[in-house]
Amino acid sequence: MYTEPTTFSAEEYFATQLPPPTLQQDVARVKEFVETHAKEARGVVLVTSGGTTVPLELNVVRFLDNFSAGTRGATSAEYFLKAGYAVIFMHRQFSLQPFSRHYSHSTNPFLDFLEIEEREGETTPTISVTPTKREHLLDVLSMYKKVHRAGTLHTLTFVTVNDYLWLLRAVCQEMSVLGRKGLFYLAAAVSDFFLPRQKMSEHKIQSGKGSLRIEMDQVPKILKPLVDEWTKEGFIVSFKLETDDKLLIPKARQALERYGHQVVIGNDLHRRKFEVVFVSRKNNSIDGTSSPSFEEHWIRIALPEDHHGPVHEGKEIEEDIVAELLRRHTAWIEKGNTTSP
Amino acid sequence: MYTEPTTFSAEEYFATQLPPPTLQQDVARVKEFVETHAKEARGVVLVTSGGTTVPLELNVVRFLDNFSAGTRGATSAEYFLKAGYAVIFMHRQFSLQPFSRHYSHSTNPFLDFLEIEEREGETTPTISVTPTKREHLLDVLSMYKKVHRAGTLHTLTFVTVNDYLWLLRAVCQEMSVLGRKGLFYLAAAVSDFFLPRQKMSEHKIQSGKGSLRIEMDQVPKILKPLVDEWTKEGFIVSFKLETDDKLLIPKARQALERYGHQVVIGNDLHRRKFEVVFVSRKNNSIDGTSSPSFEEHWIRIALPEDHHGPVHEGKEIEEDIVAELLRRHTAWIEKGNTTSP
Repeated sequence: MYTEPTTFSAEEYFATQLPPPTLQQDVARVKEFVETHAKEARGVVLVTSGGTTVPLELNVVRFLDNFSAGTRGATSAEYFLKAGYAVIFMHRQFSLQPFSRHYSHSTNPFLDFLEIEEREGETTPTISVTPTKREHLLDVLSMYKKVHRAGTLHTLTFVTVNDYLWLLRAVCQEMSVLGRKGLFYLAAAVSDFFLPRQKMSEHKIQSGKGSLRIEMDQVPKILKPLVDEWTKEGFIVSFKLETDDKLLIPKARQALERYGHQVVIGNDLHRRKFEVVFVSRKNNSIDGTSSPSFEEHWIRIALPEDHHGPVHEGKEIEEDIVAELLRRHTAWIEKGNTTSP
Repeated sequence: MYTEPTTFSAEEYFATQLPPPTLQQDVARVKEFVETHAKEARGVVLVTSGGTTVPLELNVVRFLDNFSAGTRGATSAEYFLKAGYAVIFMHRQFSLQPFSRHYSHSTNPFLDFLEIEEREGETTPTISVTPTKREHLLDVLSMYKKVHRAGTLHTLTFVTVNDYLWLLRAVCQEMSVLGRKGLFYLAAAVSDFFLPRQKMSEHKIQSGKGSLRIEMDQVPKILKPLVDEWTKEGFIVSFKLETDDKLLIPKARQALERYGHQVVIGNDLHRRKFEVVFVSRKNNSIDGTSSPSFEEHWIRIALPEDHHGPVHEGKEIEEDIVAELLRRHTAWIEKGNTTSP
């Protein structure tokens, strides 16, 4: 069966695809979180993180996915929290999360640094932390407990690109009450393609009938309605990942021209842990009288000796990314104050 | 560009696709592990676990994947270890692992049950385990330490279906020295389709040019050479996952007829945590004089009140699956002893 690919507008997308079953309760919690922190005049950032799936079957066995462990999002969320922001962390199920990311099951498994001690006079053994690991764990754990006590972290989970799109729209709409205090850090690796539910097969696609042919439609460019409708005053940061570094700056500029948001952070797949570029419009080109001109701001950190080593050793580039964004977000808020009546 | 799909035999596959770069060192370690446990006359089981990816680009951003958190494999590996087997745990990167599976970052995060205590007279605070969580953690941790001391668990990691196929062949060949003492528990959710490297695009596929069309070739049916060539005397268990339960038994029988191995464990996607079926040939049909007849052995466990609750509460079906397999494997080994000269 061959069906012509359809180009969906965002409006058509939401009119034809179904919302995830937990959407309403998720939104109610986000509303409450946003209201609490709006009252306390705290900056609120939405961090999206991890890849999205595109299921090939309604009873899903196979899916298309985007490469992402969620390191950028989870690490950045931690620095936003440290800076005093309230964070809505909207992440792919099983992708890395702030704090626990330091102890992934493969690179630094937590069972390896717990010890069983039989103490004299005690009937049950005691579990203790290996001395060499104690200091680092104490740092992470203290921050984790502090954030939980303060209630500044709210976690949302998605799996499919459809979950992601519905959640993103709803969260942005809830955050619009924050005005310029809302920051949007869209680090998730979102699929450009999807399979409308109307074209999905019900059951597992059987092999043994030759090759597999998949034809997918384009996901609507949701940055457009996000900027123009869902959250008009927010400070919006999107990401552009490329493997061909010649495309990085042109694609980032194209996105800014097309969607009119504030910053595109460009990163090359193989250099993303130690080099990124902020692409934004130059101040004097915002009035629209001249053709837009852009500026680039590179952030680089020194490569650790062994740059394949564990993430938690040495400086993380997200510290500088977040610091630079906070400067820009603060300026954005202040500009709003001076131009408002 | 349209290219005709190719049907690869296993031989053609390995002649045209590249081995993963770490294959040689992985195999050397498996060889050593197998030799150690062969000397001690211990049963050795290969457990494969988790899904495989099919990258769409050489610099991979997008990939096809198979749904699997790795619960079946990780849980079963634990029961094999408890029963005294040496386990080669060959799993998808970031899928669940024996022992640490009890503390996934989403359902039972370990940071939640650690507490910071400021004790009088001590300068640095102490980290302790929440009393209600202590007993369960002590069980898991004791078993984990015991297995590590005994050296009965060897872990291997794959990501792509190509990694998986090369590793599987090499491990089976190394395990063939075990004869009937080798058990193969192939629980990984392996893609039926792949994209030969000759057809992959070098860089990230650009969106904005309409829909995405993918055409994939069939992965060779490697159970055939596995049974006939790689490990002739091993006891081989494969899995069949379906979403349409009418297909379960017929597809399992078809696999046994086609590949001639010992057991297919069939499971329905939605019932797999509390119901599986062992499909095998009847004893009297092995001589090949009559058309093969099959028998089914169902294993079911009572559903916990809330079957969406955490995995570690209540009975796990893998306990019964492993117990049944150990009976059959022991019988297989004994039969080998009586028929050998």
